[in-house]
Amino acid sequence: MEELLEELLEECRPYTQQGNVATYIPELAKGDPNDLGIYVLRSDGRHYQAGDYKKCFTIQSVVKPILLLLALLDNGEEYVRARVGVEATGKPFDAINVTDQTLLSEHLNPMVNMGAIAMCTLIKGSDYNERFQRLLELTRTLAGNPNIGINEDVFLSEKRTGNKNRALAFLLKNYNIIQDDVEDVLDCYFKACSISVNSKDLANIGFTLASRGKHPQTDERLYPSQYAHYVNAILTTCGMYDGSGEFAVNVGVPAKSGVGGGIMAVVPTRMGIGIFSPGLDAKGNSLAGIQVLQRLAKRMYLSIF
Amino acid sequence: MEELLEELLEECRPYTQQGNVATYIPELAKGDPNDLGIYVLRSDGRHYQAGDYKKCFTIQSVVKPILLLLALLDNGEEYVRARVGVEATGKPFDAINVTDQTLLSEHLNPMVNMGAIAMCTLIKGSDYNERFQRLLELTRTLAGNPNIGINEDVFLSEKRTGNKNRALAFLLKNYNIIQDDVEDVLDCYFKACSISVNSKDLANIGFTLASRGKHPQTDERLYPSQYAHYVNAILTTCGMYDGSGEFAVNVGVPAKSGVGGGIMAVVPTRMGIGIFSPGLDAKGNSLAGIQVLQRLAKRMYLSIF
Amino acid sequence: MEELLEELLEECRPYTQQGNVATYIPELAKGDPNDLGIYVLRSDGRHYQAGDYKKCFTIQSVVKPILLLLALLDNGEEYVRARVGVEATGKPFDAINVTDQTLLSEHLNPMVNMGAIAMCTLIKGSDYNERFQRLLELTRTLAGNPNIGINEDVFLSEKRTGNKNRALAFLLKNYNIIQDDVEDVLDCYFKACSISVNSKDLANIGFTLASRGKHPQTDERLYPSQYAHYVNAILTTCGMYDGSGEFAVNVGVPAKSGVGGGIMAVVPTRMGIGIFSPGLDAKGNSLAGIQVLQRLAKRMYLSIF
Amino acid sequence: MEELLEELLEECRPYTQQGNVATYIPELAKGDPNDLGIYVLRSDGRHYQAGDYKKCFTIQSVVKPILLLLALLDNGEEYVRARVGVEATGKPFDAINVTDQTLLSEHLNPMVNMGAIAMCTLIKGSDYNERFQRLLELTRTLAGNPNIGINEDVFLSEKRTGNKNRALAFLLKNYNIIQDDVEDVLDCYFKACSISVNSKDLANIGFTLASRGKHPQTDERLYPSQYAHYVNAILTTCGMYDGSGEFAVNVGVPAKSGVGGGIMAVVPTRMGIGIFSPGLDAKGNSLAGIQVLQRLAKRMYLSIF
Repeated sequence: MEELLEELLEECRPYTQQGNVATYIPELAKGDPNDLGIYVLRSDGRHYQAGDYKKCFTIQSVVKPILLLLALLDNGEEYVRARVGVEATGKPFDAINVTDQTLLSEHLNPMVNMGAIAMCTLIKGSDYNERFQRLLELTRTLAGNPNIGINEDVFLSEKRTGNKNRALAFLLKNYNIIQDDVEDVLDCYFKACSISVNSKDLANIGFTLASRGKHPQTDERLYPSQYAHYVNAILTTCGMYDGSGEFAVNVGVPAKSGVGGGIMAVVPTRMGIGIFSPGLDAKGNSLAGIQVLQRLAKRMYLSIF
Repeated sequence: MEELLEELLEECRPYTQQGNVATYIPELAKGDPNDLGIYVLRSDGRHYQAGDYKKCFTIQSVVKPILLLLALLDNGEEYVRARVGVEATGKPFDAINVTDQTLLSEHLNPMVNMGAIAMCTLIKGSDYNERFQRLLELTRTLAGNPNIGINEDVFLSEKRTGNKNRALAFLLKNYNIIQDDVEDVLDCYFKACSISVNSKDLANIGFTLASRGKHPQTDERLYPSQYAHYVNAILTTCGMYDGSGEFAVNVGVPAKSGVGGGIMAVVPTRMGIGIFSPGLDAKGNSLAGIQVLQRLAKRMYLSIF
Repeated sequence: MEELLEELLEECRPYTQQGNVATYIPELAKGDPNDLGIYVLRSDGRHYQAGDYKKCFTIQSVVKPILLLLALLDNGEEYVRARVGVEATGKPFDAINVTDQTLLSEHLNPMVNMGAIAMCTLIKGSDYNERFQRLLELTRTLAGNPNIGINEDVFLSEKRTGNKNRALAFLLKNYNIIQDDVEDVLDCYFKACSISVNSKDLANIGFTLASRGKHPQTDERLYPSQYAHYVNAILTTCGMYDGSGEFAVNVGVPAKSGVGGGIMAVVPTRMGIGIFSPGLDAKGNSLAGIQVLQRLAKRMYLSIF
Repeated sequence: MEELLEELLEECRPYTQQGNVATYIPELAKGDPNDLGIYVLRSDGRHYQAGDYKKCFTIQSVVKPILLLLALLDNGEEYVRARVGVEATGKPFDAINVTDQTLLSEHLNPMVNMGAIAMCTLIKGSDYNERFQRLLELTRTLAGNPNIGINEDVFLSEKRTGNKNRALAFLLKNYNIIQDDVEDVLDCYFKACSISVNSKDLANIGFTLASRGKHPQTDERLYPSQYAHYVNAILTTCGMYDGSGEFAVNVGVPAKSGVGGGIMAVVPTRMGIGIFSPGLDAKGNSLAGIQVLQRLAKRMYLSIF
């Protein structure tokens, strides 16, 4: 298996040069396009890894399923679904899911920025600092890694330049979906995106979703299995933005990408996978990362379809 | 198992009164809202049924995955994908997937009318009558039912009143995606939608997708497994129109609905399911049918997520 | 004055090379990009002309205000306005003014194809041939030219290739705005667009709008002044498609362009102007024609603002 | 003439009860729906008035043409037009004139909020306070009323609740159209909207546009005539939001409305008109105000078409 991973990385290495490192957040532009790493954790407890799997990067949108899990844990399914919808938008990650005159919760999707920002308001906590701390705690628990923290430079960079997200948040405020201070909510969101992880962390988090809520090492139940179904379903229909349809056909497993270059993939009952390669395709997904996953899925018959 | 089905039908019978029988095709308006039937074919060959499972109805959009299969069989994956995209549109079934100035193949989806009409042009045949005959043949083969034919009244009704589809087809013609005579293509499409099936037929067809290409009775390979993956993936992301996200969360299996009241569901490796109940929800999906599937999925742990 | 016109044509002749002759209707592609002509008819009865003012071309969208006049004459203002709206669409000439689920009369505009096609159904006549004949008669009367006829080649070319318009017409049919046979309505519309005129004809027609309904030569009242106000207002807000705002600022008079290269301009109380130059800008308006009008407007203080 | 005005107010008074006072800015909700006033200033220097013409209200969007004038005076026509377009959007006043991935200056319109916010950045001044002061000065000069100031309560109310405008401003920031601090720009914009005027002030300001740049009392040239043409043209195509087309047909003069209930109308060469009635129609225009203008236009043949 480890050989297979090494082989796939070699095969896909040329693709690392075809993607573009995200530049819309200045700090992200510093990513090394040559990085390529993978970590696989199987349900039998064995793990396999190759390449730059220890290299840290910011989690970015891969935090969205964790945000959703925490919102579910804090409020239950019904409450969350009434506030953030589950339909594919057919639009890019930073889409303005609003007509000019109204914004309905059913137009929000937890895997698209606007819905993810709304989810920050669903996390419990006395203030947005506490809310973020609880999210960070959950991330650490899911990853089995108490050392996970945030990349302060990326956070400050996002906070300074994130005016599209700021606009989305003020629209949410305008339609009363955000009741709190917009900058507080955004701080929580920007910090969430700036959590620093590596491929192993993503594989561990993905594993909990594959095992429908169980801890990779301890077998302890971390959340009800129905929440895993909920998250995995949304990852499948919307996890790769407006490239989700193609990913479902080509790879066929729930997955979430982030503009930091990470992809977390979930193979229900079988494995969690973390991949890292910062060069992105036009839709904001790790270009080489998708190539690796596509080959791995073919070789190991991972498709759930 | 049969008891379970009976029980579920009883539980869900009240929902048959909440939906609305499709009226936009005058012939469909004649459907009896009280009908409710289910047929399940398991991979061990056993089958279970309840209610009006023998009752015939027009296949409508459930023909779309069969159209896609035939297009794949006739042309291969690459050719088809270059002509009809695979992304969710986030829009209703009769959406005009076109900006005012251009129409790209990637904006088409095989599960949405415009893409399905385009697929008719990908089927091989000397004329559109032959193309339709080949589609009908494939439908019969997949269902293991040589008696399947079309409902001439519904066909004529659709042909007479299908002006939205006619508009979509002329747009396809305008952008050179249709090269043939528009009315010929539409005749093929309207006939395809008017194929008359029952719940058992849909269960059998769904079973071939669940078994990744094998005949339910003979175990003969009908199409390559990769085509089943292709179709199942698209069913999951787009099979229930703009209700696909919710269906993925609530039920969690590939499925296709039609405004005739049918739903074909695919439980990979495990079963094919056919359901019929003509009352539709606001998105054009069988309302009671979804309720039945939702309960069945929960009781039998069908979700692939 | 004649000198001024000659001078302006010379100044603007280089612009004839910058536009593109319309190609979407094959017959139009045969237009000679070097043509440039102007005809001005003043309220004192004097007329001035220069260049290819006798050259014939198809009227295309310049027929829309005549269609609107006839619809008003046949039905009155209230009836027409309830069926075809008057707001700018902010969209191109062949815009699909329809959301996926509905089409309201207020989304139609008589200067945009979809609204113009709808107007054909408002003209009185026992059949669509008679309706067209009445439109042709009105055109002849307004132009004071009984010899005006249609260019059969352009008509057949539009009929053969006009699939975008056909799609728009079937959408109108779908939403019950067209009740008659779509091809009959389209024949009337395509013939209307194929009426062959020259710059003098357009100047005469424009003059009737400038004089609020009076015949250029006979001073006879052809239609009520309020209809002239109605038409001139819509020409100002929408006559130059999505270039109407810029035209209002740069030139400042009601005007209508056609992809045949003609522009009819109306200077209320003062003059009617016809211009011809087949090279079009990106929005489908005669490029050199607009340049000539812009200079003429500046020199003669034509702006109504 | 004064009798005519009195008569029209009486005729239209019932309409004051049909509109709705704007509530989206809490302070505006305090407006008295019974108010109705008009002031007309003719080119011969005579003025006529009736009803609550002395009553003050906030200028709201009627400040947009003044903002545009100042931007033109400070930068010239070419510079302004390259930054804020002139086409009708066909959309409501607070439309998000942006696709998800880009925002072009040609999509902005100075009479729609997003374009008006952008224009604040074109006014010269060392800071946004100075910019606003220069705008206030120009308003006072145009109105010939040195006592014009702002309604502090409305300003604070808008600042506190104007999250849609805030979202629009952050989108402008995101696309680099705003380079300065967003809150500074918004303060200037919210203050501009909160300028307190009466019907006479609006009539005087409108008169300068009618006289193409001359002071109502002193005959002094306040701005070049071409700027008046520029502003009047845009008022005609977009001054009444997505009700501009209907207003052009029904009334036929350049005009600008504001959600404070004011309308400024411009009858080129003949008169400036100010109207006030706070009940608004569905498009945000003074309902009774439009009725008064419509009748006045018919009686006095004001239409420029």
